[in-house]
Amino acid sequence: MRPARRPRILFVDGPNLNVLGTREPEVYGRMTLADIRRAVKETARLEGADVRFFQSNHEGEIVGRLQEARGKADGLVINPGGYTHTSVAIRDALIYAGVPAVELHLSNPARREPFRRTSTLEDVVAGRIAGFGGFGYVLALRAVLHLLREAGGLAGR
Amino acid sequence: MRPARRPRILFVDGPNLNVLGTREPEVYGRMTLADIRRAVKETARLEGADVRFFQSNHEGEIVGRLQEARGKADGLVINPGGYTHTSVAIRDALIYAGVPAVELHLSNPARREPFRRTSTLEDVVAGRIAGFGGFGYVLALRAVLHLLREAGGLAGR
Amino acid sequence: MRPARRPRILFVDGPNLNVLGTREPEVYGRMTLADIRRAVKETARLEGADVRFFQSNHEGEIVGRLQEARGKADGLVINPGGYTHTSVAIRDALIYAGVPAVELHLSNPARREPFRRTSTLEDVVAGRIAGFGGFGYVLALRAVLHLLREAGGLAGR
Amino acid sequence: MRPARRPRILFVDGPNLNVLGTREPEVYGRMTLADIRRAVKETARLEGADVRFFQSNHEGEIVGRLQEARGKADGLVINPGGYTHTSVAIRDALIYAGVPAVELHLSNPARREPFRRTSTLEDVVAGRIAGFGGFGYVLALRAVLHLLREAGGLAGR
Amino acid sequence: MRPARRPRILFVDGPNLNVLGTREPEVYGRMTLADIRRAVKETARLEGADVRFFQSNHEGEIVGRLQEARGKADGLVINPGGYTHTSVAIRDALIYAGVPAVELHLSNPARREPFRRTSTLEDVVAGRIAGFGGFGYVLALRAVLHLLREAGGLAGR
Amino acid sequence: MRPARRPRILFVDGPNLNVLGTREPEVYGRMTLADIRRAVKETARLEGADVRFFQSNHEGEIVGRLQEARGKADGLVINPGGYTHTSVAIRDALIYAGVPAVELHLSNPARREPFRRTSTLEDVVAGRIAGFGGFGYVLALRAVLHLLREAGGLAGR
Amino acid sequence: MRPARRPRILFVDGPNLNVLGTREPEVYGRMTLADIRRAVKETARLEGADVRFFQSNHEGEIVGRLQEARGKADGLVINPGGYTHTSVAIRDALIYAGVPAVELHLSNPARREPFRRTSTLEDVVAGRIAGFGGFGYVLALRAVLHLLREAGGLAGR
Amino acid sequence: MRPARRPRILFVDGPNLNVLGTREPEVYGRMTLADIRRAVKETARLEGADVRFFQSNHEGEIVGRLQEARGKADGLVINPGGYTHTSVAIRDALIYAGVPAVELHLSNPARREPFRRTSTLEDVVAGRIAGFGGFGYVLALRAVLHLLREAGGLAGR
Amino acid sequence: MRPARRPRILFVDGPNLNVLGTREPEVYGRMTLADIRRAVKETARLEGADVRFFQSNHEGEIVGRLQEARGKADGLVINPGGYTHTSVAIRDALIYAGVPAVELHLSNPARREPFRRTSTLEDVVAGRIAGFGGFGYVLALRAVLHLLREAGGLAGR
Amino acid sequence: MRPARRPRILFVDGPNLNVLGTREPEVYGRMTLADIRRAVKETARLEGADVRFFQSNHEGEIVGRLQEARGKADGLVINPGGYTHTSVAIRDALIYAGVPAVELHLSNPARREPFRRTSTLEDVVAGRIAGFGGFGYVLALRAVLHLLREAGGLAGR
Amino acid sequence: MRPARRPRILFVDGPNLNVLGTREPEVYGRMTLADIRRAVKETARLEGADVRFFQSNHEGEIVGRLQEARGKADGLVINPGGYTHTSVAIRDALIYAGVPAVELHLSNPARREPFRRTSTLEDVVAGRIAGFGGFGYVLALRAVLHLLREAGGLAGR
Amino acid sequence: MRPARRPRILFVDGPNLNVLGTREPEVYGRMTLADIRRAVKETARLEGADVRFFQSNHEGEIVGRLQEARGKADGLVINPGGYTHTSVAIRDALIYAGVPAVELHLSNPARREPFRRTSTLEDVVAGRIAGFGGFGYVLALRAVLHLLREAGGLAGR
Repeated sequence: MRPARRPRILFVDGPNLNVLGTREPEVYGRMTLADIRRAVKETARLEGADVRFFQSNHEGEIVGRLQEARGKADGLVINPGGYTHTSVAIRDALIYAGVPAVELHLSNPARREPFRRTSTLEDVVAGRIAGFGGFGYVLALRAVLHLLREAGGLAGR
Repeated sequence: MRPARRPRILFVDGPNLNVLGTREPEVYGRMTLADIRRAVKETARLEGADVRFFQSNHEGEIVGRLQEARGKADGLVINPGGYTHTSVAIRDALIYAGVPAVELHLSNPARREPFRRTSTLEDVVAGRIAGFGGFGYVLALRAVLHLLREAGGLAGR
Repeated sequence: MRPARRPRILFVDGPNLNVLGTREPEVYGRMTLADIRRAVKETARLEGADVRFFQSNHEGEIVGRLQEARGKADGLVINPGGYTHTSVAIRDALIYAGVPAVELHLSNPARREPFRRTSTLEDVVAGRIAGFGGFGYVLALRAVLHLLREAGGLAGR
Repeated sequence: MRPARRPRILFVDGPNLNVLGTREPEVYGRMTLADIRRAVKETARLEGADVRFFQSNHEGEIVGRLQEARGKADGLVINPGGYTHTSVAIRDALIYAGVPAVELHLSNPARREPFRRTSTLEDVVAGRIAGFGGFGYVLALRAVLHLLREAGGLAGR
Repeated sequence: MRPARRPRILFVDGPNLNVLGTREPEVYGRMTLADIRRAVKETARLEGADVRFFQSNHEGEIVGRLQEARGKADGLVINPGGYTHTSVAIRDALIYAGVPAVELHLSNPARREPFRRTSTLEDVVAGRIAGFGGFGYVLALRAVLHLLREAGGLAGR
Repeated sequence: MRPARRPRILFVDGPNLNVLGTREPEVYGRMTLADIRRAVKETARLEGADVRFFQSNHEGEIVGRLQEARGKADGLVINPGGYTHTSVAIRDALIYAGVPAVELHLSNPARREPFRRTSTLEDVVAGRIAGFGGFGYVLALRAVLHLLREAGGLAGR
Repeated sequence: MRPARRPRILFVDGPNLNVLGTREPEVYGRMTLADIRRAVKETARLEGADVRFFQSNHEGEIVGRLQEARGKADGLVINPGGYTHTSVAIRDALIYAGVPAVELHLSNPARREPFRRTSTLEDVVAGRIAGFGGFGYVLALRAVLHLLREAGGLAGR
Repeated sequence: MRPARRPRILFVDGPNLNVLGTREPEVYGRMTLADIRRAVKETARLEGADVRFFQSNHEGEIVGRLQEARGKADGLVINPGGYTHTSVAIRDALIYAGVPAVELHLSNPARREPFRRTSTLEDVVAGRIAGFGGFGYVLALRAVLHLLREAGGLAGR
Repeated sequence: MRPARRPRILFVDGPNLNVLGTREPEVYGRMTLADIRRAVKETARLEGADVRFFQSNHEGEIVGRLQEARGKADGLVINPGGYTHTSVAIRDALIYAGVPAVELHLSNPARREPFRRTSTLEDVVAGRIAGFGGFGYVLALRAVLHLLREAGGLAGR
Repeated sequence: MRPARRPRILFVDGPNLNVLGTREPEVYGRMTLADIRRAVKETARLEGADVRFFQSNHEGEIVGRLQEARGKADGLVINPGGYTHTSVAIRDALIYAGVPAVELHLSNPARREPFRRTSTLEDVVAGRIAGFGGFGYVLALRAVLHLLREAGGLAGR
Repeated sequence: MRPARRPRILFVDGPNLNVLGTREPEVYGRMTLADIRRAVKETARLEGADVRFFQSNHEGEIVGRLQEARGKADGLVINPGGYTHTSVAIRDALIYAGVPAVELHLSNPARREPFRRTSTLEDVVAGRIAGFGGFGYVLALRAVLHLLREAGGLAGR
Repeated sequence: MRPARRPRILFVDGPNLNVLGTREPEVYGRMTLADIRRAVKETARLEGADVRFFQSNHEGEIVGRLQEARGKADGLVINPGGYTHTSVAIRDALIYAGVPAVELHLSNPARREPFRRTSTLEDVVAGRIAGFGGFGYVLALRAVLHLLREAGGLAGR
């Protein structure tokens, strides 16, 4: 059942995602983070959702932003960049946030270096999407909205 | 650039997916495979794509079906079920098929037994989607169509 | 407490068990599968149980047979042969079947090649019996009947 | 061929099996060791076998008891409890005893902590039975008697 | 010593070998399976041997074909394709067949993905040949005939 | 809530702790076990607790003493010495005892040989204290009393 | 011997410890960090010690704070939160600080995910306390004061 | 061929390198970071190069500084300190920077703790220098200038 | 296309192959190295190839001989004996030689000690032949000549 | 320099060494422990040494006996039998004993099961002798006397 | 302090370094060993050092040359080539030589095959330089001279 | 039974043993190889044995010397030095030699670097002696003579 209030979705991006577009374009594509956000906003408008965005190169800031999301966001889409493979602190903050989350990767980590096959988040997120470039954010938005509809309610009223 | 011809997408499901709906519903949800196919067809209609479906409990049949897809399908969505973790033959057939593929899982394998964390396909597919139940098939269809648009052409004319 | 209806037990044998008797007799003994089934039937008669038998060299057929057993059998005895160490598909089908199961091996796998020490089923069966040749099937029948008596009911009426 | 003399079977139980019945009953069941021995004796009477029982929390005493069994017992049923996973000394004594042995576990170790999957005895016993609670001892008695009949003779006259 | 009767050699090919010639030709070459069989037959004619061929994408069918070979073939050449790395069932059937066997690979597996370095057959075949494309089958035929001459006899008269 | 009855705490020490004071004093300090017990008793007097002590070099005796503690002690402090890293039997007995337990080490095992980093008890005790020499026993007493106050009751009356 | 000057103890808490009380209370308890600090201050008052507190979600800030502690604190109590398992930088800074340190955890890491069993600090701290919730900080204060008394002096005059 | 424009080299130092000179001098020597920079500047003057310096304890700041270097520096010398062994984010930023880099360590990591043998950067830098204390920075400057001369051009005009 | 000039093939044998015939004949057969060379020469005569032979127990001499082969041999057959599993120097020299090479083993290493399963050469040779005794050299000659015909040219004119 | 007082050497034998002579004689030989002790005493007489013997199947008793040896024996020869591979308690007691020790094995453990390759004592004994049956005890006596002569003194007076 | 006597530095090169210049020039560059030595001599002349050179493909000769260096050389630069990853004998000889040593590699081993990441020398040399081609020898000379200046003396007079 | 002919024992020493006495004397002692040989000869004279000695830094020479020993020596004592851990070629030659062998080490390898715990010979020698310095050679001579007496005959008449 769809709630009356518009769902609030927070997008969190980790280190080096601020330089998308020029960063290894053969791996990550030529869309900038601003391009991606525009596409996400357009889908959000169609789906009736509120979206917020946050990017940081600092593990501690990401931890802090996730803590704040508790009770203020209904769902999360997170691309932890290089912290995917190393950060327990972000994992702990994500659990604390307490809402359905989607782990997103622009590229398919399994086609890259072996150390990219592990994720400290992989078993605390609801689902994962990888390999579709910036378009993956749009899919992730749809996915997290689906999860909220399934669960039949929104957090933190 | 969108091609004039409608893209043809093949959905391949592996063992035990024929019993969806009654199988561990707390893990896989209550949608049957028929329910999922209906939702996929509806999205395909909206997106202007042709979809075909195949399910088998037999590794060899899946190999054969993937071989036939070469030059006949433009994209693939594959949920190899229990063969995800063990089949090199399906991997080889998928490479042979030679079109963009999405690996799909209903549940998030990282939240289950440790042996479900490996996939013999993970580095030969374009992307992966996991954890969104039957809705994931719809996302996967959108994802593979996006990949085809990006690549700017269709296989096998 | 013993139920009024006779318990129905399905015996499933995997690849190469159709050639028992001539296959490495110093490992597997000289009883054929037909000999074993005769012994099992005799015990079943004494114990008041119905027994069915199925053997296949095909992983997919075993998956299918286990799916059919759901709601039709009260207990299972399975000797997956070479699929013991590799098949996730059979594991998934066994979970789906949803009745108490006994994993059986003619020889003691721990006395053979190291790769025979792992089993994809070992943690989803109720119990395991290994090393007693064809006589193990008789023990397994008694074991599964005991499990049903303990549970105090029969599946799938 | 069945020998004229009654076969002598020794049952050896390791640490913490003396407190069966109150110990984690959801894992080990509510039968006490005395209950189990009564059931074993009843089966032994029917099968025409002599049974002896020994339980100790001391690794060294179990070693000693197995040494004494050489030439005095025709078969062994051993549940080494917590020593299953750690004792080379018991393994060496079991080899010394020199008669067919069955390794028995009340629960199915594969469903418990990972360290319970290893056994120092697993490749020096004839066979293994696990997961059937106290009833497993009755099956083990039948199994070891079967092994003796197969071998066609009794040790240590 | 060369026997009077012509030796019978069975060639068994596994999954995806039916599409040789178009499959990753930079890895496997451009010869089709039919081309290879013609070359093998020519060599067989010169060497005075009978050759049979079998290909299947189904693990269970390969198991069955190997079982039938017992007593009917004098030697085996097997290219298990993707089952090389995963099939215990084929290993068991090959042991059952009971004749000298050569494991063959078109490419050199050591130059490819790490998982291709293992083979479930490698220690139950007499010898191995890899890396010579379709010509390897001709070498394998010569090799298995040499093994039969060395052993001084033919199976299954 | 503090119970009226005085809590009963059992201290169990394993092998080689009887020779404290002369044993590698640069690692374990110069306090003897008697010195430690005096300090513990003084704290127990102040805290209103009853304390008992047990030391043995025998794994089996420690198992037995822990079994007896069930229903007779309210909390446990255990320093298993060299059995820390190897004893499953003591782990099983500790679970059987069924009261909150603190694992204690005089030295910090992480600063010593690598094999000292594992403990068979570490996940069945409530908490762990290491590296404070004999003073750690006093801390452990306070810790276990705190756990009992938190739980709001005493075992076994 | 007790020094005339009051010992100065620094408490350092890592990421997500600022949200104690609401964070997974079944794991970490319901005490907030402020509650804990009150209890620590009370004990410090009784023991005649000066205590300082620092919490940060930023690895770099923790590194900086530990560097400043050199010569200014006599002892350390550190709960590195999620950085426990990943930070070499904090380890290096802790060595630089050069005073006795206690590693503290609210929960018992051995009862949680496997990756929580490793600590980059475990062999450079004097001792470790885990599993006693907020009360562990009080124990840690007593422990570090004991270490200072043992060493017979204070750092950094 | 030597370019007309002076090459610009950025030196990046990670956590705890700000306290060089007092930090474990038996490992890292008694030179401070200021001493090292003076020596580097002197060599730069002789070699006709521009040098910049950056030190931070924050992983995120190092990531940011490396991002800025793209197109602004011609070469890099990086001593990531404790982040050497754990930071994927710095690795990704270094790739983004896109200029030849030298990984530098004051001590020889192979003579220290085992975890210091791994580096997340080791395969994305051009070369590595370790074990020569502060003098290593001078060698690294010469090395990176050599790499630029070899490549025959400067980045980012 | 077959070149006019006769191809020059070098056979290199490593340590202990000089004592073939008397060395573990149940493993290596009773042919001496001289016998093998005679058979190879006969085949070479038929195939119109020039063959050279080299055997040494010295790793350094094998390295030197392979270096000399560059530009002087068109193909290589190498049986590195005990250096198969340990020598990087021979691997490097083989790469330097720069011509197609066949790795040959008399026995099937997979049937022997586990350490014989690794080869430092396996991924730098074109193909591998193992398990056919001295006859393998004849097969290897045919194989390397086939590789040269495929490549359509000879090295080092 | 040879001391005036006769050196006192203690021989400690672990589990199952009391049944030497009948125990797997093809591995351990046919000498009984009494035979070995006679040969040791004869050599001790010639060398002017006092020898004591102790055998036990109990880990705890061996720990106790080694504790008593401190200051009462000048050297030790220990064959820990099955405890070799598992006992940390005996290792700790051996360190406590504080005199030169020789670890002795009748057979060569490297020729047996893989788990026999590890020893908890191997790095705390002065030297090791294995593979010479009962004669090894005589060699060990000579070895430990040599160590005492080298050290130039006797313990514990 | 700079000594009056000129320091004597020995350069030792291992297998396949004699063919530098033609060997995989994309990895190792086009400088020959003679070119490198000329550059080293020039730097040595400027720095006032005596340099000697040695190259061998034989592990034993390198061992011998290092033994001779004891007391005759003041410092070492060693590029062990393929023996880097396998030779304990060279490690032992290098320790015997007893002077500061620099391990040098032309390429960066971390960018090549995984087995090149290990070195048997890495923890017995003072420092390491890798990835700068032939220029690395010049850096290594400077590095070892720096080490000698730091140590304030020369060996072996 | 003692044979009439004097047994011939060959002592083989590997790399760096030629510099004993000056090489790390705190590990290997101050006896030179000549000192050791004198002691061995003296014992050989008393025992009526012929002894030969061989030392080489070259793996290939050791291989050759062991090949020559076949049929010419009755027993072997081998200290392979640094080749202990790496040489399969020496292992193969030792098997070829075909006489009882003792592996000898001056120091106890288990007290040194971890890589010294493996030996390629350990399971093909009869026995092993380690940790007794040069005196170990005398023990090894006695040990190998004992083995010959046990076997009751001499090789290679």
